[in-house]
Amino acid sequence: MKIEVLKNITSANDTIAARNKQVLDRHKVFALNCMSSPGAGKTSLILQTIDRLRSELKLAVIEGDVASKIDADKIDEQGIPVVQINTGAACSLEAQMITPSLDKLPLENIDLLFIENVGNLICPAEFALGEHKKVVISSIPEGDDKPTKYPLMFSEADVIVINKIDLLPHIDFDVASFRKAVEGLNPDVKIFEVSCKTGDGIDAWCSWVSTEAKKAAS
Amino acid sequence: MKIEVLKNITSANDTIAARNKQVLDRHKVFALNCMSSPGAGKTSLILQTIDRLRSELKLAVIEGDVASKIDADKIDEQGIPVVQINTGAACSLEAQMITPSLDKLPLENIDLLFIENVGNLICPAEFALGEHKKVVISSIPEGDDKPTKYPLMFSEADVIVINKIDLLPHIDFDVASFRKAVEGLNPDVKIFEVSCKTGDGIDAWCSWVSTEAKKAAS
Repeated sequence: MKIEVLKNITSANDTIAARNKQVLDRHKVFALNCMSSPGAGKTSLILQTIDRLRSELKLAVIEGDVASKIDADKIDEQGIPVVQINTGAACSLEAQMITPSLDKLPLENIDLLFIENVGNLICPAEFALGEHKKVVISSIPEGDDKPTKYPLMFSEADVIVINKIDLLPHIDFDVASFRKAVEGLNPDVKIFEVSCKTGDGIDAWCSWVSTEAKKAAS
Repeated sequence: MKIEVLKNITSANDTIAARNKQVLDRHKVFALNCMSSPGAGKTSLILQTIDRLRSELKLAVIEGDVASKIDADKIDEQGIPVVQINTGAACSLEAQMITPSLDKLPLENIDLLFIENVGNLICPAEFALGEHKKVVISSIPEGDDKPTKYPLMFSEADVIVINKIDLLPHIDFDVASFRKAVEGLNPDVKIFEVSCKTGDGIDAWCSWVSTEAKKAAS
């Protein structure tokens, strides 16, 4: 019965997500849904991307958190339009939370929208929001077995960003084994290796984001 | 409506959890519900505890994972009784999943039962399983802002284990600020700082576990 309820919820969610996407497309806004475990580096990746791409693209952010506005404050300090959603008990953003947030953003003046989901490697994989691509951030300290343990999230990803590669000398993490597990689930996914701390790999990631955003707008 | 469904589910869950606890108490089994983000070190902490306490207590483990039996295999290699629960789409263990697992364990011959929950800092805080204490493991690379962002989990904890302290030289994590945030939510919680990699702090943690298990059995 619980699974039936979940099915009804995700089907209603998909309808609203499709409507969100129409709104974004009408305004030529390219949207990324960023998902990860707590503390894997979603906000850090967004801040690095803002820093590199703000001269060529107009950016905005929707921040999803169970509680607090810590992350939205960090985006606001950069002078980038941001909307904070606090989900309370809910373990994921859902499409119906995104709709009113889009009304609060100057869409006609945005090229690239980051939607930072709640830190959770399970539930957000079930809920489309209207995004064009799903980005999963996986960090070195979490371990290389995460694709095997959380297969839906890694199957749903269009892009996987392996963050905190600066910690590789201090942590047992087999990059080849991680990549092999991902390829078994999702052979066509694009993978970037980055450190949001040192900036390693960020250029390649930003180049992909910029190309995709311009392709979507053309 | 979704919140109403959730309330009905958690209330039914509490009834089953109370029954699980009666079964555990009847057999003088002390049970810990271990919760954390993915990759924070739940299995590593359990393995370290098995290593130190197996000569004085009879241990067993229930492993909760969305998918895979990677963790159960690690426990099994130690010759410790283990039951794997794969939750599929469900983002948390629930009391009704624990009941049949208890039937599979030699309860009359167990002093200490670890229940390793699904890696998730949100949903497991909502579901009692029948445990005597809730243990939250929080790791240095996740960042010191997690209590503020996931307040329910840190409010519900009886014990918090800060893991991966060996990484402190390489990561910006303010232990005092983390402790202050926790104390604001949960002033009486017990906090241990450990490294499951180097073994630092594990003796103090095991001493607490052993004392509590013996107190419960007496």
